[in-house]
Amino acid sequence: MLISVPATSANLGPGFDTLGLALDLRNVVRIKRSKFFSISIKGEGANNPRIKGNNMFISIFNEHYRKLTGHMDKFRFTFINKIPLSRGLGSSSAVIVSAIAAAYAMAGVHISKERLLNLALGYEPHPDNIAPAVMGGFTVSAVEAHRVHSLKKAMPPSLQAVIAIPNRPISTHHSRSKLPKRYTTSDVVYNVSRSSLLTAAFFSERWDMLRVASKDRLHQDVRMRALPELFELQRIALDNGALMSTLSGSGSTFFSMTYKEHAHALAHLLKEKFPAYRIKILDFDNEGLVVDERG
Amino acid sequence: MLISVPATSANLGPGFDTLGLALDLRNVVRIKRSKFFSISIKGEGANNPRIKGNNMFISIFNEHYRKLTGHMDKFRFTFINKIPLSRGLGSSSAVIVSAIAAAYAMAGVHISKERLLNLALGYEPHPDNIAPAVMGGFTVSAVEAHRVHSLKKAMPPSLQAVIAIPNRPISTHHSRSKLPKRYTTSDVVYNVSRSSLLTAAFFSERWDMLRVASKDRLHQDVRMRALPELFELQRIALDNGALMSTLSGSGSTFFSMTYKEHAHALAHLLKEKFPAYRIKILDFDNEGLVVDERG
Repeated sequence: MLISVPATSANLGPGFDTLGLALDLRNVVRIKRSKFFSISIKGEGANNPRIKGNNMFISIFNEHYRKLTGHMDKFRFTFINKIPLSRGLGSSSAVIVSAIAAAYAMAGVHISKERLLNLALGYEPHPDNIAPAVMGGFTVSAVEAHRVHSLKKAMPPSLQAVIAIPNRPISTHHSRSKLPKRYTTSDVVYNVSRSSLLTAAFFSERWDMLRVASKDRLHQDVRMRALPELFELQRIALDNGALMSTLSGSGSTFFSMTYKEHAHALAHLLKEKFPAYRIKILDFDNEGLVVDERG
Repeated sequence: MLISVPATSANLGPGFDTLGLALDLRNVVRIKRSKFFSISIKGEGANNPRIKGNNMFISIFNEHYRKLTGHMDKFRFTFINKIPLSRGLGSSSAVIVSAIAAAYAMAGVHISKERLLNLALGYEPHPDNIAPAVMGGFTVSAVEAHRVHSLKKAMPPSLQAVIAIPNRPISTHHSRSKLPKRYTTSDVVYNVSRSSLLTAAFFSERWDMLRVASKDRLHQDVRMRALPELFELQRIALDNGALMSTLSGSGSTFFSMTYKEHAHALAHLLKEKFPAYRIKILDFDNEGLVVDERG
């Protein structure tokens, strides 16, 4: 059994806890029945013994597998991780989504993507990463009575993401604690209008609208202050072909979107200016979670 | 010269100062050069001498006509008003938009709809009524540096609006003063997510999403408390075929949207339960402002 889930950029611009996008950068896990329990991790997190010992994937997988089958079996898990950890690219969401999907697949129980999304919400209270991780594409989500309501727009191949991954994380806890507890009507309208306009721009492919529509007043600047060079990165991106350029999740990764023909020049420039960062050009992903039973 | 502008429902659900829709209910003004200045008003406002004496249309028209031509001429204005006044159906926006358009038309100067929208913003600080009044359809708008950025989705003929117009207004001043000055993060996310999801639902014609996506926590309940029977009206509408049912603008009109085949039954029921209200079934308008030089 082969399960793969894409990286995601969420909190997209003004779309706090709402808007997300799936990126063509996948974590893959291979699961086989075995006489002994074993884990091997390749790629991101491979050298971190804590991840092997206290593994979120295994605990979520076990919880669901036991619930579905009434017993426990032994498996060999092989993780091939490409999504960087703690950088705002949805690595936790990928783990949650793939662990639940894997438990259902190994138990031989069908689960719809919609139901999977609602189960994943039990582990991550915001839907903006899990929705694109499950569905792919650009997603708009709201939570009502512990259920995710989500709509998806597939991304066209003419666009790419230029991802700048800093050499250190922004502590989610640290930056969330710095966010205001209350917002003025003017800031609320600022974000309600831009998040809605950004949604309309994606759904109608009016990329010329992204620059204005992707601005935020709720969280981004506060978080960027923990890593102030990101302001310069954003300015450089917007001056050099980026249709929009926003913090990915709660950071520290910065997400810029360009027409395909502008991606290389922007990536090159960012590598030059931020030599300690990893810069990646990625296609968008429109599939989301993939379960391959023959894998 | 014949100028007509549709009624509009704005502040749509969670889309505070952002989302609006044009309705097929038009104010028409006919303008002819004449030896004497004269005004005649038919329909809404016809019996209100204040509207004739201190006419917003005339003062905006004069301001722009004088600016464009460098002098003043005399005209005969005939208003045929169908949009109820002070009921949250965009009557002021219709006046502003048609007055500016009329001044340009009578001066023989072309004006784009985009430019017209930005001029109209000088008279009405929120774009959510003027955008659908000018463009028609469902519109999503944000203001950046005194410019309106707006995207439109045409409405399909399979849907209709059922409009309930109370016999009295909600004072905008009164109800705006009762609104909170600040909002919690949870309420902000509630509206950001729903306004974005509502936008996605309109753009992708996923009408099944409207019910959840049209909920609001910023202003609607506070305003409805000034006319508490609206809570019952909303409940009845949602229980009887309405895909969504929200305050129109800042009220007092209530806007419900249904599939065409359900509109009559809902209108009938609302007439029965609210005999003092005017109940109208309206198509949506996808044209917005129309200038007919041969009229």
